[in-house]
Amino acid sequence: MTPNWPERVRVVEVGPRDGLQNEKVQIPASAKIRFIDLLSDAGLPVVEATSFVSPRAIPQLSDADEVMTQIARHEGVTYPVLVPNLKGMERALAAGVRSIAVFTAASEAFTQHNINASIAQSLDNFRPVCDLARREGIAVRGYISTVFGCPYEGVVPTSKVLEVAESLLEMGASELSLGDTIGVATPNQVVEVLDLLISKGSIPVSRLAVHFHDTRGTALANVLMALQRGISIVDSSAGGLGGCPYAPGAAGNLATEDLVYMLNGMGIETGVDLEKLVLATSTIAPFLDHVPTSKYYQAVRSTLPV
Amino acid sequence: MTPNWPERVRVVEVGPRDGLQNEKVQIPASAKIRFIDLLSDAGLPVVEATSFVSPRAIPQLSDADEVMTQIARHEGVTYPVLVPNLKGMERALAAGVRSIAVFTAASEAFTQHNINASIAQSLDNFRPVCDLARREGIAVRGYISTVFGCPYEGVVPTSKVLEVAESLLEMGASELSLGDTIGVATPNQVVEVLDLLISKGSIPVSRLAVHFHDTRGTALANVLMALQRGISIVDSSAGGLGGCPYAPGAAGNLATEDLVYMLNGMGIETGVDLEKLVLATSTIAPFLDHVPTSKYYQAVRSTLPV
Repeated sequence: MTPNWPERVRVVEVGPRDGLQNEKVQIPASAKIRFIDLLSDAGLPVVEATSFVSPRAIPQLSDADEVMTQIARHEGVTYPVLVPNLKGMERALAAGVRSIAVFTAASEAFTQHNINASIAQSLDNFRPVCDLARREGIAVRGYISTVFGCPYEGVVPTSKVLEVAESLLEMGASELSLGDTIGVATPNQVVEVLDLLISKGSIPVSRLAVHFHDTRGTALANVLMALQRGISIVDSSAGGLGGCPYAPGAAGNLATEDLVYMLNGMGIETGVDLEKLVLATSTIAPFLDHVPTSKYYQAVRSTLPV
Repeated sequence: MTPNWPERVRVVEVGPRDGLQNEKVQIPASAKIRFIDLLSDAGLPVVEATSFVSPRAIPQLSDADEVMTQIARHEGVTYPVLVPNLKGMERALAAGVRSIAVFTAASEAFTQHNINASIAQSLDNFRPVCDLARREGIAVRGYISTVFGCPYEGVVPTSKVLEVAESLLEMGASELSLGDTIGVATPNQVVEVLDLLISKGSIPVSRLAVHFHDTRGTALANVLMALQRGISIVDSSAGGLGGCPYAPGAAGNLATEDLVYMLNGMGIETGVDLEKLVLATSTIAPFLDHVPTSKYYQAVRSTLPV
């Protein structure tokens, strides 16, 4: 007898933002727009499109306004963008954004290195952003990174994850994405962390997403355990876009193709057309300095139309 | 609460045989011998070393006699070799082999394409090999390929797998390895096939091994489901050696590094030293025409000693 899987998984496509932000190449806005449009065509319900950070901080995403005003918004698809502060939020609103994400971590050392602030300061920073989002009727997703390990601190206590999660929900986040930023998680750890977060009762499992990196090959196995624990929202990146800044040459985000192939095979609905997804990845691949790391993509690319 | 995993998994290293047989390069015998010796050093309990097939059929393994007589056999490590027929068996015995494997499939079309014989003919072929092995006190492992899908037939009925499995056990095989030859399996299918094979009662779960290919990225997730079903023998290939002949450029065997990293993280004993395993892979890597596909290997290779 197979376990009790969810009937449907909502795949949150993070390739255009999280993926491209971590690729060491500059990609023209027109290629990003085409990529996002093809991802919408492929049936992805959520396509995280870009980030309204300072163009000086992340030059790869300095075309955020252009991208957000030129993509073809499909009905039923949401296009969240990352917003670091009130200034970014105002730019996002001006570009017609209707869904945002904020990004913090469960490790103090990581937050300091990454955004030069404490976790508490990063949360304080989000408060006015979340207030404005509420007034505008805009959904907020909260990313918590380094949930399963930190490149600076090593082990991250789950009590810290819980604390950050509760703060984000209290601020108005409707969904939390638990990130394995450096791709170290293994299946039992996933179960232990999720059980701890859910058991307290303050965090509904329906509002939790998992965000695994495939740096050591364990991402899909980790997803499987999360599904067994009732999670039904999974982040992934088309083609596996986005390397790992802490291990040059290594894989980054879990590839959407690999995830969807597995879920299809398990009879779990995603609404994603795998062939169209591969087509989307194949349009961005020529701009990269490496072959996309998705194993499914690599398996079929010899048969791709030129 | 985490599921009831086995306390210990026996990792069957198939890199030197199954892996190198499917790499499109000729590797000197001395490099293979060093590779096998380092795999033994790394604590792998079983290292499938080579194949006593006709050198005309598989030139990559034409040095089987040299390899088997020159490796340093570690106490407690077994070094099975593939044997296709009585002639191969006699060569293997002359080279001091004490453990063998025979190879057939659950798909008629695959067996015809692969060894130009029906499944029944391939089994008939093994009978005298198994008889001789019994007289010599040599253990026989039976490989059943295309258990989860066939490149020619598509779906393979599990009833056929059961039939072949029972024949091999009756002939004297002490262990059966269930192969996902083209890497199409997904987790529910693994559960369904295993449940069907085990439920009849003729096949003890302790004698079943799983052999997944990572062609579409699902191998570790499939292992996880097999472990939940009581399987405790898993085949894998150092570095992920061995591509997929049916998808050029795609990944082949599940990488031993990725498997051991996951099992270590889950507190499941393997006896394998991951660092020494990576060292073994790094000595064979320069002979390949690509970077080994193991994600764990790729994540650490930037820090490898030169």
